[in-house]
Amino acid sequence: MTSENDVYEKQNFGNKLGFGNSPALLIVDFVNGFNDPNAFGGGNIPEAIETTKSLLKVAREKNITIAHTRVVFSDDSSDLNIMCKKVPSLKTLTEASESSQIVSSLTPLPGEIVIRKQVPSAFFGTNLAPQLTARGVDTVLVTGCTTSGCVRASALDAMCWGFMPIVVADACGDRAIGPHEANLFDLKQKYADVVKADEVIKEL
Amino acid sequence: MTSENDVYEKQNFGNKLGFGNSPALLIVDFVNGFNDPNAFGGGNIPEAIETTKSLLKVAREKNITIAHTRVVFSDDSSDLNIMCKKVPSLKTLTEASESSQIVSSLTPLPGEIVIRKQVPSAFFGTNLAPQLTARGVDTVLVTGCTTSGCVRASALDAMCWGFMPIVVADACGDRAIGPHEANLFDLKQKYADVVKADEVIKEL
Amino acid sequence: MTSENDVYEKQNFGNKLGFGNSPALLIVDFVNGFNDPNAFGGGNIPEAIETTKSLLKVAREKNITIAHTRVVFSDDSSDLNIMCKKVPSLKTLTEASESSQIVSSLTPLPGEIVIRKQVPSAFFGTNLAPQLTARGVDTVLVTGCTTSGCVRASALDAMCWGFMPIVVADACGDRAIGPHEANLFDLKQKYADVVKADEVIKEL
Amino acid sequence: MTSENDVYEKQNFGNKLGFGNSPALLIVDFVNGFNDPNAFGGGNIPEAIETTKSLLKVAREKNITIAHTRVVFSDDSSDLNIMCKKVPSLKTLTEASESSQIVSSLTPLPGEIVIRKQVPSAFFGTNLAPQLTARGVDTVLVTGCTTSGCVRASALDAMCWGFMPIVVADACGDRAIGPHEANLFDLKQKYADVVKADEVIKEL
Repeated sequence: MTSENDVYEKQNFGNKLGFGNSPALLIVDFVNGFNDPNAFGGGNIPEAIETTKSLLKVAREKNITIAHTRVVFSDDSSDLNIMCKKVPSLKTLTEASESSQIVSSLTPLPGEIVIRKQVPSAFFGTNLAPQLTARGVDTVLVTGCTTSGCVRASALDAMCWGFMPIVVADACGDRAIGPHEANLFDLKQKYADVVKADEVIKEL
Repeated sequence: MTSENDVYEKQNFGNKLGFGNSPALLIVDFVNGFNDPNAFGGGNIPEAIETTKSLLKVAREKNITIAHTRVVFSDDSSDLNIMCKKVPSLKTLTEASESSQIVSSLTPLPGEIVIRKQVPSAFFGTNLAPQLTARGVDTVLVTGCTTSGCVRASALDAMCWGFMPIVVADACGDRAIGPHEANLFDLKQKYADVVKADEVIKEL
Repeated sequence: MTSENDVYEKQNFGNKLGFGNSPALLIVDFVNGFNDPNAFGGGNIPEAIETTKSLLKVAREKNITIAHTRVVFSDDSSDLNIMCKKVPSLKTLTEASESSQIVSSLTPLPGEIVIRKQVPSAFFGTNLAPQLTARGVDTVLVTGCTTSGCVRASALDAMCWGFMPIVVADACGDRAIGPHEANLFDLKQKYADVVKADEVIKEL
Repeated sequence: MTSENDVYEKQNFGNKLGFGNSPALLIVDFVNGFNDPNAFGGGNIPEAIETTKSLLKVAREKNITIAHTRVVFSDDSSDLNIMCKKVPSLKTLTEASESSQIVSSLTPLPGEIVIRKQVPSAFFGTNLAPQLTARGVDTVLVTGCTTSGCVRASALDAMCWGFMPIVVADACGDRAIGPHEANLFDLKQKYADVVKADEVIKEL
């Protein structure tokens, strides 16, 4: 993306946000169905889960706010939405379905926020923004999947709601690598810092 | 993006939404500054403005709801946000600045909605969703710039707010073509129908 | 409230909204805990539940959109909010607690929307507005409890989101009658039509 | 409201929130039209403006975040909403109209936030919540008019968005005293601390 980089650099996009004083760790949609190449998974998602595991361990040691998200539609399909028309099998992600459970290596501990959502952003139609505001959070470390879907939407909304988004590149995964890279590019230029897990762990 | 297409097809993404009964035309950020390669413009934005001009003419004839957006920050910079840290020159887009005026070929007529916004989505921190709901709109035809920024964010939020988004590919432009194409791919797979202006004009 | 009425009439408040073409019935927080005077109930709530029962029957016959709300906090109290500081016992309303179940005479049928919420408004931090927009709803018939709390907040937000709110006075209840009356006054003057269930049934 | 108080006390409503570490002052709709008994004013609004003047002076000395709101509809009435059906004369409040200007004794200084809104809450369809979050605000001191309208709605939404609302009773005014008192009662029981300006000034 050399020529793209040139255009964005000339127009002074992509400046650094930096790390705030009170970060939260947001883990987007690392549920079984998104870790299964025969469902919604594939690509580099397994590696991203591994990296998130390390990050989650440090976040727990440092006692920062931790929030997980799941996509959950109701058992009777009463809340299907437009995204379910684009991607019909999303409706199989119900409260008790195996595919909508958070992967076992990242199981939430009591007291960690668990957001149920029906659209890409962790912030849309949920109480995540107020929860983070009430806890004095100023920075959101974004991990999860997919980079080109719910991660991007959540990082964008984090910025819109007044939190500095830091997208942890190697803790984000996607079913296909092209969109993964393309979306990290957009995020870095316009909405978020994009860094490696190692750097984040050093800052925590 | 052959291999990407394969993955998405296998997982049954990218189904068609179709055209509702009551469309609105949303024209995102076609302002002078985004039509100037030395400010925020470049790429295929001029052609997209031309195509939007034709579409706007038909939309006015058909008397559908029309909404324009502008990025507007306050003169005293009291409302600068995190996006202004990533892209500092956005703060030059003030109410009266030449760069924040809608391009002359698309000047809003009295009665058309004009949304002032400070973040990518036309729906975030604005009254656009309620305005469209109150008018009975069910479908949002999305045009404007940039495809990889405010167009995508607005199309995504249209879907989240319960409107079927139809992104008019040749009426959307971007400063760089790689992100333009990558974002049309994401939009088509997950959030919106992506069609040509000709098809939309036939449906109206 | 004679003198209040005079002031509002002189300033031309309180005009009629009228009935739209596509109403939904919203039943706010008629759960066991709010029907129990020793928990959050009392006042005229039992009568309001009876009236709502009749209205729900007609709404089902007419096949209009029906949405119920419950206040639900997580079992591990990870999502307690500021309202829980004002009213600590709200945290007992968890997914499986008897007090947070909808009263048996109004049990939702499959396909009816059930909204879980943590603040007064049925629209805040939920997907209710998008659900109603996607179904083409233009009018929200508001019933439930308490009039001075979640009913008022939900009717106000219905208006803000672009739906005409019709508050069904005798299908709304409150633990104390003074606030019930005071809030119906405010709603009628500024945000909603306030009518009796009989009138609504005639319109449906 | 003795009996009401009993019910609320028995159910353990009305607990104290307390003062956070980083307050903002929110001044709701103290514009000429709401200070004119022949427009939208009357009652105890003039006294509330006087009290707010003192509070604003201290807030500026202490350098806390200050936000003002105005109701502003577009000149061409393209954004009229449902509230304008209830109260048609609201549409006279346009950007340049005398009636929509903030009263001269409270004129905003450069750098103070000025929110234009079209519905009661200062937070609805605006960027106020993100602005306060990005500045690390945890407490919102609410003043303005009317107590039974935009003050209540703004205090409620402050709570919903994760800020502790402190309603400054004698810095809030209403066109009629009954609704003023009734709404302070509701606010105190359920959503906010309700205190006098003197107490707030001592805390700042």
